[in-house]
Amino acid sequence: MRILLFFYLLLIGLFVGYVYNYQTTDSIEREWSENELTGNMDETYVMVTFQVGIDYWKRSLKGFEDAAEAMNVSVEYRGATQYDVDEEITVLEQVIAKNPAGIAVSTMDPRALNPVIENAVDAGIPVVMFDSDAPESEAYSFLGTDNYNAGVEAANKMAELLNEEGEVGVITQPHQLNHQERTQGFQDTIFVEYPNMKVVSIKDGRGEQMLSKAAAEDIMREYPDIAGIFATEANGGVGVGLATVANNRQDLIKIISFDTGKGTLDMIEDGVISATLAQGTWEMGYWSLQFLFHLQHDIVEQENDSMPLPRFVDTGVTIVTKENVDSYYPQ
Amino acid sequence: MRILLFFYLLLIGLFVGYVYNYQTTDSIEREWSENELTGNMDETYVMVTFQVGIDYWKRSLKGFEDAAEAMNVSVEYRGATQYDVDEEITVLEQVIAKNPAGIAVSTMDPRALNPVIENAVDAGIPVVMFDSDAPESEAYSFLGTDNYNAGVEAANKMAELLNEEGEVGVITQPHQLNHQERTQGFQDTIFVEYPNMKVVSIKDGRGEQMLSKAAAEDIMREYPDIAGIFATEANGGVGVGLATVANNRQDLIKIISFDTGKGTLDMIEDGVISATLAQGTWEMGYWSLQFLFHLQHDIVEQENDSMPLPRFVDTGVTIVTKENVDSYYPQ
Repeated sequence: MRILLFFYLLLIGLFVGYVYNYQTTDSIEREWSENELTGNMDETYVMVTFQVGIDYWKRSLKGFEDAAEAMNVSVEYRGATQYDVDEEITVLEQVIAKNPAGIAVSTMDPRALNPVIENAVDAGIPVVMFDSDAPESEAYSFLGTDNYNAGVEAANKMAELLNEEGEVGVITQPHQLNHQERTQGFQDTIFVEYPNMKVVSIKDGRGEQMLSKAAAEDIMREYPDIAGIFATEANGGVGVGLATVANNRQDLIKIISFDTGKGTLDMIEDGVISATLAQGTWEMGYWSLQFLFHLQHDIVEQENDSMPLPRFVDTGVTIVTKENVDSYYPQ
Repeated sequence: MRILLFFYLLLIGLFVGYVYNYQTTDSIEREWSENELTGNMDETYVMVTFQVGIDYWKRSLKGFEDAAEAMNVSVEYRGATQYDVDEEITVLEQVIAKNPAGIAVSTMDPRALNPVIENAVDAGIPVVMFDSDAPESEAYSFLGTDNYNAGVEAANKMAELLNEEGEVGVITQPHQLNHQERTQGFQDTIFVEYPNMKVVSIKDGRGEQMLSKAAAEDIMREYPDIAGIFATEANGGVGVGLATVANNRQDLIKIISFDTGKGTLDMIEDGVISATLAQGTWEMGYWSLQFLFHLQHDIVEQENDSMPLPRFVDTGVTIVTKENVDSYYPQ
């Protein structure tokens, strides 16, 4: 009987303890359940690119995944295996057919995907563009590098490397808008900010190493005092590096390149390329997912019918030099 | 004895029930505690402006508050009561002294706050700029309107209103950068896109109704065929509206203005002003808090030392006309 009473009291004690505990937990839970930034794992957001296998997309995808983890939703990665716009359209159509919670698209063609993007938006699927835009599409936002500003940053870094003095050249792809903008930002900044510097030559490297090497050698021949070359894309930068090394001018000509491919990073390590501009690819992926989540959950201004998201996010560039190059190699 | 046994069994039953319940709750709680986008109410984020009382800030503050609610953190609103940069500096210093979780600042002077912003960042307090930037400050990001693009949108809307034909003018504040950019975007777009339109006059309205009215009347006198006027700020728009009404030209001259003050909205309702550009002020506040939260919680790219946030967010503009003007009156 006394043992029974003891158990009886013990149970009452435990019971009271649990009730107290439960209610505390409950109040925390209530607070959390008001949090709008938690989805569920059935919600799938898809990233669609082209040349899906290249390293360039890895950081964007990591940002996309990190945001998904933070918000408790799922992601998928799809895209054209080749640099083939028809293949990308097909993949995008397949993705839309599965009615995902949202799609982040990078396009190799600023117009070709517009009808498919419109289909997605008409079907109520949120779409944002990242890295390269389709400006006339129905996508809600674009998250990528402001290429003009990137050119400005390149010019400022070049001026620093050359003590604001000397002749400089550019190797670019003059028919592609993003490269035109990078070149323009570079040119304008040198012209306006650095009176003792001059852009003496702008040449087409066609995005190929060997053609860029040849173009750089042309510049070196035509302008023997050339002190710096800005390459607006990665193959060009490596090509210019090959040119300075082949002509034993690597200590005389400062090179600034673009992006953080292995060839570029190695040349920075070796001191052949002085600096490269790393794009905010992780940021593109992270904020793309955030934006898609906000559209899917309708967490947007409620009072009027203004557009629901910022129309453009400049994810910016970071300057990579020998000092910080290590952290840019894939981990 | 049987009663005691009954209670005993009842208690065991309740106990098991509660244990079960508690564990379920616990597992939900665990899932949520992995969610990085939940703060706690002790975390206070502060919005700092000038002329704190004006309506213009209300939507930004609402966005700031909405984001705080979504992420379970607290907000405060502070600022200079007047258009007085010294007062704003003092307020910002007071805010910093309380070591908040983050500060979103709009400045009336692109340079004056820089030392104070640096103090905040040095003290480990995240700072972002919104609405008007301090581009050379240590703030991590700027969220606001791309004013050049806003001018482009105004030009496209003007072209639509005028069937892409006729003489147009601009009333602006030529000494202020944001107004220069709005004017430039308008001018460039008319010039490049609409060969049958021409910007014939750009005048200084000094941000005042009566001076803008006089400037608009000068344009109407000098260019009797003037078909449209773009005012790059709200008082100018109302001033131009007063000018067309006073001269009985309100049916002949299309006016596009800026922002959504009551005077502007009333003139849209009356058909005197054809359209105005609403800035994404809610978006500025909402994403400012998001950015500050991400800095405070270190939810940024971990692999390298790139900048942690996008450097610029263009919150965009929405065109307000008679059709959607109702939703822009304060609720």
